[in-house]
Amino acid sequence: MAYPQEIFGRTTLTEGSLVARRREAVASKALSYQLDVLQKTGRYDAFKLQWIPSYGDPPDHWPIPNHLFWDSDIGKWIEGACYFLHDHPHRDIQSAVDELTQMIASAQQPDGYLNIHFTVVEPGKRFTNIRDFHELYNAGHLIEGALAHNQLYQNDDLLKPLVRYVDLLYDTFGPNEGQLPGYPGHPEIELALLRLYHRTKNPKHLSLAKYFLTERGKLNAKGEHYYHLEAKRRGEEGWMKPSFWGQTDAMWYYQAHKPIMEQETIEGHSVRAMYLLTAASDLVRLEDNANKPLKDAIYRLWDNMVQKKMYITGGIGAIKQWEGFGPDYFLPQGTDEGGCYSETCAAIGVMMLAERILQYDLDRRFSDVMELCLYNAMLTSMSSEGTKFTYVNQLASSDKDLSKREEWFTCACCPPNVLRLLGQIGGYIYSHFEEQKQLNVHLYIPSETKIKSGCQETILSQKSNWPWDGQIEFELRGESSQLSVGLRIPAWSKNWKVTPSPPTTTLEKGYLILPADWVSAHPRFTLDIDISPRFIAPHPYTNQDTVAVARGPIVYCVEDIDNTWVKDHFKSVQLDPASASVHEKFVTDETTGDSYTALTITNGARILDVDRINAQPGLDVGDLQSEEGSQSGVLDELKFVPYYFRANRGGSGQARVGLKRWHRSK
Amino acid sequence: MAYPQEIFGRTTLTEGSLVARRREAVASKALSYQLDVLQKTGRYDAFKLQWIPSYGDPPDHWPIPNHLFWDSDIGKWIEGACYFLHDHPHRDIQSAVDELTQMIASAQQPDGYLNIHFTVVEPGKRFTNIRDFHELYNAGHLIEGALAHNQLYQNDDLLKPLVRYVDLLYDTFGPNEGQLPGYPGHPEIELALLRLYHRTKNPKHLSLAKYFLTERGKLNAKGEHYYHLEAKRRGEEGWMKPSFWGQTDAMWYYQAHKPIMEQETIEGHSVRAMYLLTAASDLVRLEDNANKPLKDAIYRLWDNMVQKKMYITGGIGAIKQWEGFGPDYFLPQGTDEGGCYSETCAAIGVMMLAERILQYDLDRRFSDVMELCLYNAMLTSMSSEGTKFTYVNQLASSDKDLSKREEWFTCACCPPNVLRLLGQIGGYIYSHFEEQKQLNVHLYIPSETKIKSGCQETILSQKSNWPWDGQIEFELRGESSQLSVGLRIPAWSKNWKVTPSPPTTTLEKGYLILPADWVSAHPRFTLDIDISPRFIAPHPYTNQDTVAVARGPIVYCVEDIDNTWVKDHFKSVQLDPASASVHEKFVTDETTGDSYTALTITNGARILDVDRINAQPGLDVGDLQSEEGSQSGVLDELKFVPYYFRANRGGSGQARVGLKRWHRSK
Repeated sequence: MAYPQEIFGRTTLTEGSLVARRREAVASKALSYQLDVLQKTGRYDAFKLQWIPSYGDPPDHWPIPNHLFWDSDIGKWIEGACYFLHDHPHRDIQSAVDELTQMIASAQQPDGYLNIHFTVVEPGKRFTNIRDFHELYNAGHLIEGALAHNQLYQNDDLLKPLVRYVDLLYDTFGPNEGQLPGYPGHPEIELALLRLYHRTKNPKHLSLAKYFLTERGKLNAKGEHYYHLEAKRRGEEGWMKPSFWGQTDAMWYYQAHKPIMEQETIEGHSVRAMYLLTAASDLVRLEDNANKPLKDAIYRLWDNMVQKKMYITGGIGAIKQWEGFGPDYFLPQGTDEGGCYSETCAAIGVMMLAERILQYDLDRRFSDVMELCLYNAMLTSMSSEGTKFTYVNQLASSDKDLSKREEWFTCACCPPNVLRLLGQIGGYIYSHFEEQKQLNVHLYIPSETKIKSGCQETILSQKSNWPWDGQIEFELRGESSQLSVGLRIPAWSKNWKVTPSPPTTTLEKGYLILPADWVSAHPRFTLDIDISPRFIAPHPYTNQDTVAVARGPIVYCVEDIDNTWVKDHFKSVQLDPASASVHEKFVTDETTGDSYTALTITNGARILDVDRINAQPGLDVGDLQSEEGSQSGVLDELKFVPYYFRANRGGSGQARVGLKRWHRSK
Repeated sequence: MAYPQEIFGRTTLTEGSLVARRREAVASKALSYQLDVLQKTGRYDAFKLQWIPSYGDPPDHWPIPNHLFWDSDIGKWIEGACYFLHDHPHRDIQSAVDELTQMIASAQQPDGYLNIHFTVVEPGKRFTNIRDFHELYNAGHLIEGALAHNQLYQNDDLLKPLVRYVDLLYDTFGPNEGQLPGYPGHPEIELALLRLYHRTKNPKHLSLAKYFLTERGKLNAKGEHYYHLEAKRRGEEGWMKPSFWGQTDAMWYYQAHKPIMEQETIEGHSVRAMYLLTAASDLVRLEDNANKPLKDAIYRLWDNMVQKKMYITGGIGAIKQWEGFGPDYFLPQGTDEGGCYSETCAAIGVMMLAERILQYDLDRRFSDVMELCLYNAMLTSMSSEGTKFTYVNQLASSDKDLSKREEWFTCACCPPNVLRLLGQIGGYIYSHFEEQKQLNVHLYIPSETKIKSGCQETILSQKSNWPWDGQIEFELRGESSQLSVGLRIPAWSKNWKVTPSPPTTTLEKGYLILPADWVSAHPRFTLDIDISPRFIAPHPYTNQDTVAVARGPIVYCVEDIDNTWVKDHFKSVQLDPASASVHEKFVTDETTGDSYTALTITNGARILDVDRINAQPGLDVGDLQSEEGSQSGVLDELKFVPYYFRANRGGSGQARVGLKRWHRSK
């Protein structure tokens, strides 16, 4: 067992692939760009514990001061930076990491406390609003940053202060007299503590993580909820609700309406849900898969999410107000259709959760979704160049919310999260089941990975032009290691083939397991996956009646820059999958230098003439069907680019993934 | 020109029709039932100005105390009662009206002020929160009650105190030094003041109404919004937002984001919007149709509403949180599909607005919608017996929100509004354009109406079994009056015929105008309207892809009591309008004694086997279409009842109007 954050270095990405290019953009641009923003906005110096005028700004979202997440912004940037410094040395980045390390260490209070806001702005109010004030969330990200720092530099300069802080937290939170029986409103520290425990083997670290995970959502002996008690102690009236609660007493927003094991459906803030379940899955693994009720709950929530609350891009969260899940099947594509959030961090959270589950359950229903999120909901969040980011990733633009990336955000969780994820992406490609002597390939990203077993070193390499070409050449090198290899066969692939012919083509939960003796005999083998363009649609209960184009793991969209006639964000474009001809062309874009397979559809798309529909509350179905099924207005061609590639080449910000299905009259 | 509230008595409904039966239910049951509730809940005695324990309850929706609407509940009940006492004398109802009149008069403060909350609970805080505290809304409903009382009893017992109160309001609000330059958060008093002016001809009453209507949504010379200034004076911080604002500074909730004339789309709380536009339309009429910018704005907002924000039942308001309008075309059918509000009062408001516009613009686009609302969004709100009511009228039930009526509501605006509307419904059927000597028939409800012109009396009667039968027999009796008759030909009717043959069949904005000499020559004539069942659908941009059944003005639904196999609120039922056979049967229901035309569909409906759809973020379109278009699972029959009739016969509360369209494979 290993964490991707720790083993990513075993895997080297081959230069030139899509993921490698995005990694390169981070190393060469995004890290420095973000460092610059951290400096300009005051975040960089905040651990100096001086007053900064913006601390007095009114909060964008009561009761949360806008600077409350700054500790985590720094922690995440350090973490990401350390992953890249591993193979991309960079003097300025390195000195910034060093300086931040010193500042953080020096910001620690005599008792171990370590937080900007409650040291500078509201000293004396520590742990009085763990529901909303992100104190423990910040601690979690600092711990993760410290773990990455410790691994890279092999020193305790950052880790030591954090371990001291955890000691304080361990004393502060718990069921005993004098302790606070609470848990963070934004999960994060749980997964950080489990990773910390893996490094330190200090049972306190495991114990505190477990306490947070199991106490969550429970009522005390008097039937009271911790967050209600805490609010009462702050003197808050019942009506003082943060606007992100909607109109309810939204304990579900915090994943605190019920203990995880009792939750039937995935609810609330989507990032919080993913971080919590990632920690819970790691706990399942740590307890040797023995906690069946917890494992069942995770699977139940995963299935609910993937089957009923996930966009076809892998994005989750339809509701802006609470940055999270709506009702089952409520998945509008954009603001003007009722909402679509699909936060970048949430997609990263889905990948984190999938990766943890794959540690004990090799099942493509997790890795397929992990890949879906990677290439679509996650990669779409950073510009090709690495200097612009999204927070929200809608599937359709609107006049109110154009398809575009921003330079930064007041709440800046997403941009550094992309750094962290891409930094450690090597750790997501393979997993090594040491006991079974099996190496699993979850992602087809050109790379090679080293497996050490005792003093034996084995190297598995995969060469391909994935995701543009479905042929992947594998080679196992090194001492004879009796290693079986598991290959994920994506569920969307209708045809696939391994050459030379493998002993079996029966899949185990979507993986083809090549036995060790076969691999020894055939250290070079090829996997061909049919990545022909295909039409996909959301579930009929989403009431979308749309169709989108995918090719391999890539979901496509239409953009105004390629389809310049568009005026209505492609709302009126209808697509008939049965009659559409899809033409593929591998292109290199001039603006960005990015290569991808562009798609053009001829004959299958038309413009619905909405002006011919007499808008009124009840349309005559005959009239409607006649217009909807009409053969007129057929487009000569409709051009598609990968959804992740949108908003890289200018244009007016009009884009759409799912197009209205054309029920063409026969 | 006349108000329906004043002229309803000219029209006598024939016994036995659907609307007459519902009026009868109000007269015999609802009035007494509601009086009983008013007494039990403390509302009845509240004008005695004693402290009532529930005044101390925490508000359901901060900052609005739950009892804040009580004045209006009483005002509306009195108003409704007076309309019914006109032709349904009732000793207990009459004594209650008398006693309430005395209590209200005696509650008036020395300076004319008249409001329960600010006399008993927060004296000294008058007019400090006209944004949320419904003070002027309450005054409006009391004025309307007093006008009805004055008309019935021909005395000033109730009207006089209200006129005194209006004097105080006239002095309090306005642009002058020492006055408050504000306007009510919930429009209502504007339309009441215009009606009051019609009775009193007191220019102050017109002037105050105009002030409220034109000041609304403006910023002062310093660019400040009145509601912001008011909140500041109350010491409220910017983050203290009522939860019904969503996440914005929701001036749009109050129709106060812009002056009416500058509004491009209909937004915010739907009842407030309708009440405001009703007053605005009345002002247009009063100013002889000369205020073109205001008239244009009303038409623009009407069109936006009807074309893009109205359910096929005539209901408006998709969003529960602010009881109002969502984005264009966002019209899910129920809670589990993203929301549906369709408040009863809002449907009544649409009827009020349509009626006002019809006074100066005889166009069926207003009267068609008025009839749609009457028979569907409005009538569905009261049980056949008259003792149960709805507030919200969703088009599809869900486990969370079953299709059922309630006995009462904390915020009880809807039940007494139904009484008011049905009380004066006679005033909605016809309009008399005196100058043109033209009598217009907007609604086909069996009835006769008397027109006096000088000392000539003319009676127009219509006999039919509408809405179950499309044949209407008219007869004009009385002295030869040279009266032309305008007949609304509903837009949904594909065939219609007048016998004997009229001089023209050309419609003027959807009305057939029968000239006076033709009517003199043919005082008996028949209109036949084709009311064959038809299939209707919402606009394609609603992303609903549903189809519903209508017959004449009646929209139908399916209910579990007739289709007992249903388990999923008819979510999986697909309907193919092209192949469906619709069977009609006029039935009399045993439980309620109500008669209606029941519909049964054979051959055109099936159950989508969702279990055969592999739920995942991107379904294969081929697989999906094969299941969606499948010929299996066809239902022997699917039974429909009028939507207004739902939830009258028991059952488990499952109902649906729009069914998924079955794109049957050919």
